[in-house]
Amino acid sequence: LTRDEEENIEFVFEPDGNKIRVLSSSSILEAANLAGNRIRSECGGNGNCGKCRVIVEDQKSLTDLTVHEEKHLTSSEIEKGYRLACQAMSRKNVVVFIPPESRVEKRKIQSTGVERPVQVDPLTRKFNVRLIKPSLSDIRPDYERLLDFLKREHDLENLEIEHSLIRKIPRILREAQWNVTVATWNQRIVAVEPGDKGNDLYGLSIDVGTSKIVVHLVDLENGLTKGIGSIENPQIMFGEDLITRISYTMSREGGLKTLQNKAVEGINEAIQDAIRLEGVDPNKIYEATVVGNTAMHHFLLAIEPRYIARSPFVPATKTPINVKAKELKIMINPNGVISFLPLIAGFVGADAIADILASGIADSQETSMLLDIGTNTEIFLGNQDDIFTCSCASGPAFEGGHIKHGMKAVTGAIEKFTLNPETDEVEYKIIGENKPRGLCGSAILDIVAELFKHGILNNKGRFDADAKTPRLMKIDGKLAFVIVPKEESATGKEIVVTQKDVNEILLAKAAIYSGCSILMKRKELREEDISEILIAGAFGNYINPDNAKLIGMIPNVPSENIRFIGNSAITGAKMALVSKEEREKAETISRTVRYLELSNDPSFRSEFASAIFLPHRTPDRSS
Amino acid sequence: LTRDEEENIEFVFEPDGNKIRVLSSSSILEAANLAGNRIRSECGGNGNCGKCRVIVEDQKSLTDLTVHEEKHLTSSEIEKGYRLACQAMSRKNVVVFIPPESRVEKRKIQSTGVERPVQVDPLTRKFNVRLIKPSLSDIRPDYERLLDFLKREHDLENLEIEHSLIRKIPRILREAQWNVTVATWNQRIVAVEPGDKGNDLYGLSIDVGTSKIVVHLVDLENGLTKGIGSIENPQIMFGEDLITRISYTMSREGGLKTLQNKAVEGINEAIQDAIRLEGVDPNKIYEATVVGNTAMHHFLLAIEPRYIARSPFVPATKTPINVKAKELKIMINPNGVISFLPLIAGFVGADAIADILASGIADSQETSMLLDIGTNTEIFLGNQDDIFTCSCASGPAFEGGHIKHGMKAVTGAIEKFTLNPETDEVEYKIIGENKPRGLCGSAILDIVAELFKHGILNNKGRFDADAKTPRLMKIDGKLAFVIVPKEESATGKEIVVTQKDVNEILLAKAAIYSGCSILMKRKELREEDISEILIAGAFGNYINPDNAKLIGMIPNVPSENIRFIGNSAITGAKMALVSKEEREKAETISRTVRYLELSNDPSFRSEFASAIFLPHRTPDRSS
Repeated sequence: LTRDEEENIEFVFEPDGNKIRVLSSSSILEAANLAGNRIRSECGGNGNCGKCRVIVEDQKSLTDLTVHEEKHLTSSEIEKGYRLACQAMSRKNVVVFIPPESRVEKRKIQSTGVERPVQVDPLTRKFNVRLIKPSLSDIRPDYERLLDFLKREHDLENLEIEHSLIRKIPRILREAQWNVTVATWNQRIVAVEPGDKGNDLYGLSIDVGTSKIVVHLVDLENGLTKGIGSIENPQIMFGEDLITRISYTMSREGGLKTLQNKAVEGINEAIQDAIRLEGVDPNKIYEATVVGNTAMHHFLLAIEPRYIARSPFVPATKTPINVKAKELKIMINPNGVISFLPLIAGFVGADAIADILASGIADSQETSMLLDIGTNTEIFLGNQDDIFTCSCASGPAFEGGHIKHGMKAVTGAIEKFTLNPETDEVEYKIIGENKPRGLCGSAILDIVAELFKHGILNNKGRFDADAKTPRLMKIDGKLAFVIVPKEESATGKEIVVTQKDVNEILLAKAAIYSGCSILMKRKELREEDISEILIAGAFGNYINPDNAKLIGMIPNVPSENIRFIGNSAITGAKMALVSKEEREKAETISRTVRYLELSNDPSFRSEFASAIFLPHRTPDRSS
Repeated sequence: LTRDEEENIEFVFEPDGNKIRVLSSSSILEAANLAGNRIRSECGGNGNCGKCRVIVEDQKSLTDLTVHEEKHLTSSEIEKGYRLACQAMSRKNVVVFIPPESRVEKRKIQSTGVERPVQVDPLTRKFNVRLIKPSLSDIRPDYERLLDFLKREHDLENLEIEHSLIRKIPRILREAQWNVTVATWNQRIVAVEPGDKGNDLYGLSIDVGTSKIVVHLVDLENGLTKGIGSIENPQIMFGEDLITRISYTMSREGGLKTLQNKAVEGINEAIQDAIRLEGVDPNKIYEATVVGNTAMHHFLLAIEPRYIARSPFVPATKTPINVKAKELKIMINPNGVISFLPLIAGFVGADAIADILASGIADSQETSMLLDIGTNTEIFLGNQDDIFTCSCASGPAFEGGHIKHGMKAVTGAIEKFTLNPETDEVEYKIIGENKPRGLCGSAILDIVAELFKHGILNNKGRFDADAKTPRLMKIDGKLAFVIVPKEESATGKEIVVTQKDVNEILLAKAAIYSGCSILMKRKELREEDISEILIAGAFGNYINPDNAKLIGMIPNVPSENIRFIGNSAITGAKMALVSKEEREKAETISRTVRYLELSNDPSFRSEFASAIFLPHRTPDRSS
């Protein structure tokens, strides 16, 4: 090998045909990421999850199998050329095939929520300014001349401007013949544009989730949404869950900056997506409100995140942070302002504050419970007087994680399930038009509920070996329930639910119910005191509320009092964008909502132990 | 020529031996600047001033003589290898000799002024912060924990912080075991440092003049000056005067940024100079106050400067501007604040405001006149009730410009002069120990005064051809007065004063006197109403006040009421640095001082016409 060949290997990724040249010390996964291919990697590339399977014909060019590959790949797969992308490196130019199961697919992204009307009164405003030009008898400087006008005509005072904008004022004023438009954000001048451009002002609301980024383009003149963009969070290549990503920042020099850059890239792509239809000039976007969980907040601002993953889980700050767009390289007007809404705690972020804004629970006299279900589930209970919150470690089961045939809500996932116990027939609904490939969270919840309802699972969540259904069979010596037989599935293998899968769901629902229960006890409320349960978030939108009650995941309130409010994070972010008052409300919420740290609650263990039953240890759900 | 040789020429500059490789399209002047040689260039490199003379032995390697070179160089000089550096380019590697007269020499820099006591109360403060570390029962975020302490212990509220600093707080707090020191500037947190570092806080005052930069290092604990640094303003390579530099920004893409970078380079060098002695860590310098004329202010902030050179001469702004040190790349603590003190008008800058602070005239009940003499001379007249100001185009004569043997106040310049008319003996004082090379401004003023006093010049400023002195002789058919005969001078040529030189001085003094006179008329004051004349600035410090009165440059007040206050720009900048109150006073001065535009004053022409006589058209100086 010459030195040149030694250092540079060309990878071609099929079926897309992307090419990249990288150092020979790069893994296939690293090369794939650089080439823009999204390969599943739940463990962040350390060989533990076994999801980054790729196929390479020419095995001779690759490094030897590692112990991780020997663990995750069968010998017949190895014969077919399967490797783990995070483990294998290549010594020569090579062609790599990414099989469908390893691709990160475009998910159903819940990009809207139920909107509540707010009065349009944003921080961004625009003013036409027509000045008398200077003369020897009126030698006021350019900027003071402009300020005098804004004070006289619009009663604006104490305005601020940064010097990078003052720099350009002399030329703009003269080229525009003293007729300009000034955009302000709060007390800050963010743009001086030639001519009368009064009606062109836009803002963005941005929801940066662990797995998805959603952007709404809003006309700040009238508060109307003019475009929606969304994208998978590109940080996924550094781990699907937050803990893996935080570990990444700790193990790599510059890792935090990498995560920050990836999130910004993703936001910029989603912005492009959102503005495409209307063809809006990014320079006419003067501000954005950003929500996300505390880890995403820290990643985006490159704030040291490791301590939010360690007890006592404190964030660096919960105060609102306003940053110039150019500092974060977010592609709107460079002097525009990116406002990070405030947080509540390490596990209750700005997205939760947005949920509260969107739900209206902080404005209501009635007592409501609000849940945003995910790997961590945030629960709020209260009304305009006070609100308690906690965060439950509900785990990845509802996103298909740790479930044998679990998967996210992407094409090929079963999302709904019912069983006819008389005929042993099942009905299911698949996302997209294909054959089923696996089960997403809402289906698994349905399955557990249906099996419990029909006695196939007992109140301890164990399969009843005597249940009279041919679908319950032993696989590898353990009972499992067959949802889809081989011949019907996309993979050619049957899709089943195992005892371990049921256990995962019980752990998840018990965590959530314990949170609900502790909040209710702390506020001395019973189920009948709760006038409404609001369920936010992508997952929540697809669950069957009767089944959620049936398995004891949420309090047993009448189903007509359960409402799904969709992506309320983006809705709340938009309310804060459009209305100064809502933005102030976000700050009040951040200061006043009372966070309970469950791991510090003396009753948590006993609550959890009771909630691990179906639906509960005692029928009336008292602990 | 190979392509490589064609594009790259190596210049060696003697006597220093500096080397540089540049494109063959570069002039010798450009190469010299890049190599760090300072060559005089008053016209900014367009062939007009003829000051950038260099000697090249190997004339064959150079491009042909230009018309400018033929105009400025005698044929004997051309034979000796003299060229103008701005005109000649080289086709081959070449050795260039820079003769002494073309070098920009280290000037006597007036780097201190007369100081007035102020109460030490700077915007920068430091606080030791000792925190209780978070626990599950106290989960306040890091930043809010720190704010709570500052509020409780030091009554600080509404503090701001930029996110680049928040980023680092989690780690600093833990590494320092919750014992840190916070530095604040006004309401802004500018540093969080491990441990108790309460006494280490410094600031800088910076005077950026057209030709020199002076920096004072100040201990903000007690207001004491701990170091002084100074340097020639490196922008000089783009022209000695401001108009040439402004033209440069208009004629070159990126020219304004180049001037900005040069000024910042100069400031950073002067900072190094100022901190060297005490070995102060630049990170412990948290703020700087900057003064300078309006053009220097615009250059340093890269604000479009062209309109301050065109009627009606308005600056972009006169408001104080605070910029983060890292934005300007000024080498103090990167989050430290660089405060540009406010301006008054296009020709009356922050240096003038600093002059007023330092002089104390705005605090006094007595009426004072303050002059800062230079190419433009700013004059102030008033007291605590109100102050009028104007700027006179006094020209470069007092800096040696447009004077046959004029030079700046550098080594070899005669700075004082007296004549004994009985013996025709002269006495002069030279800067440094060498033989005289020319005349600096204060000497020329002395000469005109002495010649007038002894009747060699008449009241119209014309040489009296009948004057009985052998020193008055015809040179090239015109009368001139010999100050130094050939054999005494460093150049081997006699040093003389010509009729044209006298005329230049008369124009300069008439401009200044007209300004004084118009201000006095506007305020309805006579000479006897002026309790004191204060003279600021480097030049002013060396003039003989009796001679200044004798030629009618300043009002005729008793000499004991004339005071020299030195570099009052740096002194005033330091007062604003050390005292919040003085900084606020600077803002008040900026808003309230009344600027008179002389070119717009109806009596200016007649005032000037009267003041062009010695000392004045009428003995009592009434117009």
